[in-house]
Amino acid sequence: MNKRGLLFVISGPAGSGKGTIVSRVRELAPFDFSVSATTRAPRPGEIDGVHYHYMTKDAFRAKIAAGEMFEYAEYVGNLYGTPKQAVEDALDAGKNIILEIDAQGAMQVKDKMPEAILIFILPPDYETLVARIRGRGTETEDVIAERMQKAHTELGYFERYDYVVVNETGGVEQAAENVIAILNAEKLRTYRNGEIQQKFFG
Amino acid sequence: MNKRGLLFVISGPAGSGKGTIVSRVRELAPFDFSVSATTRAPRPGEIDGVHYHYMTKDAFRAKIAAGEMFEYAEYVGNLYGTPKQAVEDALDAGKNIILEIDAQGAMQVKDKMPEAILIFILPPDYETLVARIRGRGTETEDVIAERMQKAHTELGYFERYDYVVVNETGGVEQAAENVIAILNAEKLRTYRNGEIQQKFFG
Repeated sequence: MNKRGLLFVISGPAGSGKGTIVSRVRELAPFDFSVSATTRAPRPGEIDGVHYHYMTKDAFRAKIAAGEMFEYAEYVGNLYGTPKQAVEDALDAGKNIILEIDAQGAMQVKDKMPEAILIFILPPDYETLVARIRGRGTETEDVIAERMQKAHTELGYFERYDYVVVNETGGVEQAAENVIAILNAEKLRTYRNGEIQQKFFG
Repeated sequence: MNKRGLLFVISGPAGSGKGTIVSRVRELAPFDFSVSATTRAPRPGEIDGVHYHYMTKDAFRAKIAAGEMFEYAEYVGNLYGTPKQAVEDALDAGKNIILEIDAQGAMQVKDKMPEAILIFILPPDYETLVARIRGRGTETEDVIAERMQKAHTELGYFERYDYVVVNETGGVEQAAENVIAILNAEKLRTYRNGEIQQKFFG
């Protein structure tokens, strides 16, 4: 039987740079990533089943009703969520999974699976947060205001995360290495490795 | 005011290879090491104040009586211990300290300072443990028997450690990297970094 895998949740406010960091972690580390579902339209270059499972709102709500979403959140009019069975299957198969989801989803995961390890990504300071949210330059003022409000709400969840990684300006590589250090360290917890002790007392 | 440093304790049975791993960690990572005190005679090449503070048994026992030892243990007729004030001063100055001590000492530290982070180093299996203890070839059968007994006792403390790192044959570099991942990850715990959240709500 496989040893059950670990579930890591990475989130952070818009402007934290978490997407860039998670992409770098993907390149460097042998972890599995869960593909989220969303009702938003694909952006140019995004591929169904790779970046997201794209689905209609009706289909998404049917999955929620059937208890088939591990977590979900509504954001700027669209639904985002994690199909449950895929995560459970991967963990049972011994895979270590990273979920990149928002704080609202992270809290749902922590409630359902307290052993999940939560990592919060933050920009170096408030000014950088604001500049990064505005700097993308592709959204209306309303969307920016909504993002700022959401970022503030997410920061309130700080203490419910296990780890915090600050994404310093120009420091994506360092931030990615810090995330990988957390992933590797958590695998070494004694309470997850009781079988090692048994080898000496068998 | 400096943020208080972290105290890491690394131990493992004789034959675990912890000394080699800790030496490699010293080379790679910017952590401070506490110099232990001992009543055993210096081995060739060892320097007083660098490898150990060498002292007489009377002087050592006087320090225990005065409460000036953070932890101590007797082993093969000699006393080994950690002078308390040096550790407290370093932590207050914001330094992250690594103590390489035996399991008996590690338990004393955990009792006195529950926030200490304990890392247990183990060889890959029982056969390797025995071979490594015998392989040194410099001790009598009595000393070997005492080391085996002590190793067995130490393995009983497994669950009181926070992390376990297996020193696979030929895997010192990997083991050192795992230890460094733990050191780096623990610095990122949210409950030690509340001031980061404050920057966004100040």
